[in-house]
Amino acid sequence: MKLNVTQKLIKDHLVSGEMNPGEEIGLKIDQTLTQDATGTMVMLELEAMGLDYAKTEASCQYVDHNLIQVDSKNPDDHLFLQSATRRFGLHYSRPGNGVSHPVHMQRLAKPGKTLLGSDSHTCANGCMGMLAMGAGGIDVAMAIAGEPFYVKMPQVWGVKLTGELPDWVSAKDVILELLRRYDVKGGVGKVIEYYGPGLKNLDAMDRHVIANMGAELGATGTVFPSDNEIKRFLKEQDREEDWIELVADKGATYDLEEEINLSEVEPLVAKPSSPGNVVPVKEVAGEPIYQSYIGSSAQPGFDDFAIAAEIVKDKRIADGVSLDINPTSRQMLTDLVQEGHIASLLQAGARLHQAGCNGCIGMGQAPATGRNSLRTTPRNFPGRSGTKEDSVFLCSSETAAASALKGEITDPRKLDMKYPKIKGPKNPTVDDQLLDQPLSPEDAKKVELTKGPNIASIPEMDELPNEMEVPILLKMNDNISTDEILAGGARVLPYRSNLPEISKFTFEIVDETYYDRAMESRKQTGHAIVGGYNYGQGSSREHAALAPRYLGLRVAIVKDFARIHWQNLVNFGVLPLTFRHEEDFDKLSQGDVIQFHDLRDKIKQGHDLTATLKDKNAEIEVTHALSPRQVDIMLKGGLINWVKERQNTKA
Amino acid sequence: MKLNVTQKLIKDHLVSGEMNPGEEIGLKIDQTLTQDATGTMVMLELEAMGLDYAKTEASCQYVDHNLIQVDSKNPDDHLFLQSATRRFGLHYSRPGNGVSHPVHMQRLAKPGKTLLGSDSHTCANGCMGMLAMGAGGIDVAMAIAGEPFYVKMPQVWGVKLTGELPDWVSAKDVILELLRRYDVKGGVGKVIEYYGPGLKNLDAMDRHVIANMGAELGATGTVFPSDNEIKRFLKEQDREEDWIELVADKGATYDLEEEINLSEVEPLVAKPSSPGNVVPVKEVAGEPIYQSYIGSSAQPGFDDFAIAAEIVKDKRIADGVSLDINPTSRQMLTDLVQEGHIASLLQAGARLHQAGCNGCIGMGQAPATGRNSLRTTPRNFPGRSGTKEDSVFLCSSETAAASALKGEITDPRKLDMKYPKIKGPKNPTVDDQLLDQPLSPEDAKKVELTKGPNIASIPEMDELPNEMEVPILLKMNDNISTDEILAGGARVLPYRSNLPEISKFTFEIVDETYYDRAMESRKQTGHAIVGGYNYGQGSSREHAALAPRYLGLRVAIVKDFARIHWQNLVNFGVLPLTFRHEEDFDKLSQGDVIQFHDLRDKIKQGHDLTATLKDKNAEIEVTHALSPRQVDIMLKGGLINWVKERQNTKA
Repeated sequence: MKLNVTQKLIKDHLVSGEMNPGEEIGLKIDQTLTQDATGTMVMLELEAMGLDYAKTEASCQYVDHNLIQVDSKNPDDHLFLQSATRRFGLHYSRPGNGVSHPVHMQRLAKPGKTLLGSDSHTCANGCMGMLAMGAGGIDVAMAIAGEPFYVKMPQVWGVKLTGELPDWVSAKDVILELLRRYDVKGGVGKVIEYYGPGLKNLDAMDRHVIANMGAELGATGTVFPSDNEIKRFLKEQDREEDWIELVADKGATYDLEEEINLSEVEPLVAKPSSPGNVVPVKEVAGEPIYQSYIGSSAQPGFDDFAIAAEIVKDKRIADGVSLDINPTSRQMLTDLVQEGHIASLLQAGARLHQAGCNGCIGMGQAPATGRNSLRTTPRNFPGRSGTKEDSVFLCSSETAAASALKGEITDPRKLDMKYPKIKGPKNPTVDDQLLDQPLSPEDAKKVELTKGPNIASIPEMDELPNEMEVPILLKMNDNISTDEILAGGARVLPYRSNLPEISKFTFEIVDETYYDRAMESRKQTGHAIVGGYNYGQGSSREHAALAPRYLGLRVAIVKDFARIHWQNLVNFGVLPLTFRHEEDFDKLSQGDVIQFHDLRDKIKQGHDLTATLKDKNAEIEVTHALSPRQVDIMLKGGLINWVKERQNTKA
Repeated sequence: MKLNVTQKLIKDHLVSGEMNPGEEIGLKIDQTLTQDATGTMVMLELEAMGLDYAKTEASCQYVDHNLIQVDSKNPDDHLFLQSATRRFGLHYSRPGNGVSHPVHMQRLAKPGKTLLGSDSHTCANGCMGMLAMGAGGIDVAMAIAGEPFYVKMPQVWGVKLTGELPDWVSAKDVILELLRRYDVKGGVGKVIEYYGPGLKNLDAMDRHVIANMGAELGATGTVFPSDNEIKRFLKEQDREEDWIELVADKGATYDLEEEINLSEVEPLVAKPSSPGNVVPVKEVAGEPIYQSYIGSSAQPGFDDFAIAAEIVKDKRIADGVSLDINPTSRQMLTDLVQEGHIASLLQAGARLHQAGCNGCIGMGQAPATGRNSLRTTPRNFPGRSGTKEDSVFLCSSETAAASALKGEITDPRKLDMKYPKIKGPKNPTVDDQLLDQPLSPEDAKKVELTKGPNIASIPEMDELPNEMEVPILLKMNDNISTDEILAGGARVLPYRSNLPEISKFTFEIVDETYYDRAMESRKQTGHAIVGGYNYGQGSSREHAALAPRYLGLRVAIVKDFARIHWQNLVNFGVLPLTFRHEEDFDKLSQGDVIQFHDLRDKIKQGHDLTATLKDKNAEIEVTHALSPRQVDIMLKGGLINWVKERQNTKA
């Protein structure tokens, strides 16, 4: 059988299940990636599991999210993470070394391997001919411990690229074009695989941009072949030996087909407040901007900064515009400094920030009230910038730089200049100064964990009750993101290792009264929430499942779920249900009390359940999509209980 | 009469009083400087006063403190400040342009002028042959409105410099040496004037370092002559026309004399938690460090970063050390980039931060719990770093860089290398891209202020009562700093324009119960506090007087006051009293109720007052140091009421 790249990667790593789309498969995981916002919990889970030493080929803990140290909480977490990586045999990328995805790509990614990461943009490394997937922290903890990763076998969506990008149009516009066509749930249940003659015109970092924002389509992953461009990239990184060729068999087919003629792509922008809200730049040209923001894992390359530098060189940014430059890796910043691009940006009036995620995750650089922010970041969900009622547009570096000069959203093709052609740094830096290597198993055993006062254990969780009677505390519409369930940002993320504290922020953007009402429910029966389509899109942070669970959430009934959040709900013992008849959504109101009878037996017996609306004398039919393994997890109250029991059985 | 430089500056600007040390004089102010943490209040005061256009020769509003934008509060403040500078005819230094003191020195400072700034390190510009003084925000507002600045005529303390600094010893060690000799109140009531043959070996930025930390000695100001080095510096800044020569008359004398032989100075360090806690580096060598921090207005020069770069070049910082580089101005960062120093720092493993005050004022970079932080910043008061029980050492760039390499406090002379000689950038950048010029008076009139939702007016304050009966809510020991009265940092400073909110943090480091008890007192009679020597040292922030006043503080009885805080207390109508007999300090306890009879008449009649301890049948004698003008301000309840009445009388 002729296989595409995705199928080859899956076949090579399949440990259970059949490669039939929709069916649960188990995959061996070669590499993992954790970032600090999710990683402290992963490390606590490894400790709870009694892990001796990582079973993966390479696992790296990055510190890129919580770089703002306004008190001891973040630096204490950094020390805890460093000690945990030493204890468990992981790599450690120190604060200031850069954003996980580009650093991983530069220093650790290998074609032909699987990568699981507790960050939704882990898919970015699919640009390297890897199967790279975001997951909840606990899934990554399991992978580090050598357990397979379970996921529904995706459909493979072949996107054929032809032509060549015109001047002033770049990779960001390609992925925005796909979002324009298919919106934020167009990739659900799919791996997007790019192929075709247009590929040769996209370098490895261009592919990173495209693979990264596959997350915004809700895709399970994005896969590019490992071709000569990847060989060139690895050679530049002094890692040519890590290259293997990995391309689709001649005649391989795809479950779904799409084509993008690069020559026809134009500068695009995602309007507030969804990455799927895409229009040509010219449609919003003239909108005044307060901020132009360049950086993030969705625009991480040397070229992405160099092009902005060349555009603003010897000019001055407009009055009242903050041009924020966020380098994505220290190694790349060094190259940008040495090639003179940082000087060009500074001289035009840019603010240069430290290497890291920064404002992309709400860690600084929030826009002023009522002002437009134009960003090269992957997401513009409401409030993600840190400003409650924000107005964030997403675009390419070209568009961001042109707009900074004009003070308003500007189609870069309208600039009165020739398109600057950039091709990489002349002498690329390779720099592992802040990337600590794992200790040997012998040395690792001797390491003690360094725990600051803000790191708290996860409370015990109870089993799924057989009779459940819970009030609906929230009813929400479509596309509720994990940022709305539990915001990121500097106010919230410092408490990521302190569940009682972080839970106070749950759903605050949606309904400020939720927390108090949920705490009340927690003392009694727990509660339910109701949502629309694409519930739980966005960031993979597992706190968005763990915090509501801590507050008593037992069941979520929605039209459909975003994949990672669904997985997180299962992992923490929240029963995720969808409507059998979507019109039943209208029958439910906040305050209704829902009853399930004989629930433990029913979820074992089949997928369909009946919920009784206690005060309405009505019933609705709902479905769970749990595999037998997941039913077992759900009955035990979540994966922590399940693993605990498993470890006890082994011992 | 032969005059020293300080006397010449004062004589040129004297509008009232006699030049007798200790007597109040009024000085014409030529220039002002405000930063954003204190500046929003200054701008609100200008608005309340109905100012039409600044009366000073040059006034600049800098944005350097609140650069972390985790929500809309800081960026809203930036827009408010920008609109206010346009409205009132001020310069505006945009976020990212750098720290006020070095930027002012580079772009606006002029020998022979007076400068008043709402930042305690304003004295740094004394390096330019200016009389530069820190003051409360409202004093600066008055100066912008053309009112004189009233201050006690200082003693002039001549410090003769001889010799030449040895290798590995720099300007920071000179000022640490003075702090070692005289501690944090050694400069109170004095202007420190440097002179002598050693001066020729200190460039303008070296002098800035020394002048800056005159604030740590409690000095009213620090003055250097304007000599050929200042001419060279201004020429480098394309401002040679701003130079005048200003040196002491031959035969001029000083009220006090001191001498430092530069050749005998060695590397010094201030141990936690006071800048006066100075010992030779060798005494603490070997202490492990978590952080090495380079930057701030106390180490702002090109050379200060370049020397660190040369020390770490082609080496790697020690495991577990965070080497934080905080550029002080964008213009200088550009030079450091272009000369290759930033690349050297990055390659050794440094974290590069945006240009601004950053961790020096607790805005990020807090150390981990229980770990030592080594900093080139001016202050190490408890908690200022953001970490509650911190351990901050102060030192030179040389010591910080050497220690970063070794992972422990290291005497730089012990490094196995030749001392790198640095002399300025080859082609210094001059860059006003982010320094907005004032509008013309006509254009200014048309500007509307941009007020975000977090900017609140100052509540009305009542007059001084004639009969006062107040409980002592706090009794404190010596050297209480304004950081302990009202902390800086990212948790607190965003509320600087919102008095009810920021007041919640008052004295929380000293006693967490104070706020609740004070709020209670506020509804009744108000309250008193008692302190030891040097009460209110440190930052000039007027919120440290305004917030307690808002919470009901009416009288502070201490052994003695730091100058700026004393002034702020007067300005906001808190009666500052000192003991006539210091042993009476022991008679007072928290909870005692103090009575003053016929208070309004008494403070007009003389300086001595009697306070009755209600429940102890005892009396103590206290003194106020108010001038007749200040008595009038005190009677009216503070300067805002006084100015309001004055404006009404004029109209």
